[in-house]
Amino acid sequence: MRILGIDPGLAIVGYGVIDSEKGVYRPVDCGVINTPKELSLPERLELIYKGMGELIDTFKPDQVAIEELFFTKNITTGITVAEARGVILLACKQSGLPMFEYTPNQIKQSLTGYGKADKKQIQFMITRLLGLKAIPKPDDAADALAIALTHAQTNRLGGLFSI
Amino acid sequence: MRILGIDPGLAIVGYGVIDSEKGVYRPVDCGVINTPKELSLPERLELIYKGMGELIDTFKPDQVAIEELFFTKNITTGITVAEARGVILLACKQSGLPMFEYTPNQIKQSLTGYGKADKKQIQFMITRLLGLKAIPKPDDAADALAIALTHAQTNRLGGLFSI
Repeated sequence: MRILGIDPGLAIVGYGVIDSEKGVYRPVDCGVINTPKELSLPERLELIYKGMGELIDTFKPDQVAIEELFFTKNITTGITVAEARGVILLACKQSGLPMFEYTPNQIKQSLTGYGKADKKQIQFMITRLLGLKAIPKPDDAADALAIALTHAQTNRLGGLFSI
Repeated sequence: MRILGIDPGLAIVGYGVIDSEKGVYRPVDCGVINTPKELSLPERLELIYKGMGELIDTFKPDQVAIEELFFTKNITTGITVAEARGVILLACKQSGLPMFEYTPNQIKQSLTGYGKADKKQIQFMITRLLGLKAIPKPDDAADALAIALTHAQTNRLGGLFSI
């Protein structure tokens, strides 16, 4: 099964694609959709929508896993992240893809067994589980792979957090 | 000029359409897009996206005015409102419509001259400016008319708050 992991954002949307078969995870691709801050908000949202369509066309995932949003720190930034996330969910829905969401704590728990793990621990587990030689860059792409891996592991264990 | 005013939300999107010519405002239509809470978030976002497309096709507005979001009260509800707003902005952008946003205070100030006016004052001014016999229902539709009127008045005064 091919999983597309998404780390939502307005300036940077991270994506990570993995194949998961019987507990074996294979990296396919990872990267980001960038939207220049010089563009208007509607223009940036349209870029994200088109970018998502291209990702889905290119990698043909079976399922999508996306981070759930919590705003405790910066609410103003959070508004635009949520606007971007709405557009991402729409693009996936229009492609008929089943979607699943995970909180940051669920991702940390799933990959390291510890809900408050730091970024280095997460990145270590990503490289290990996917047999990578280096930590994927930028962080948004690595985060997206972590989300995809979390979904792959949750699926295996029979638990599903469908949106 | 025809203006489509939008009061964003996930469960209810209010819309109000007015024609504005030389300081004369004529009501065209108002109402809501409802999304049942039994549906998933992606399904509800898709309904809003389709609904926006239908509104634009039906009324062929020249410009769109939409409320700017502030989350000081309920952040969790705010996240889904922002996700819906992202989809609304996308639909308008894809139709090539110029978009303008106004804060609740700007709307109150524009319609009543007082940034902290209450809902009754706003509704009184909507019915007066549009020559209506009754207050538009539901509140979300009235709010959308208020946003459209704010944009019409701001345009006349030469000030524009483009997104």
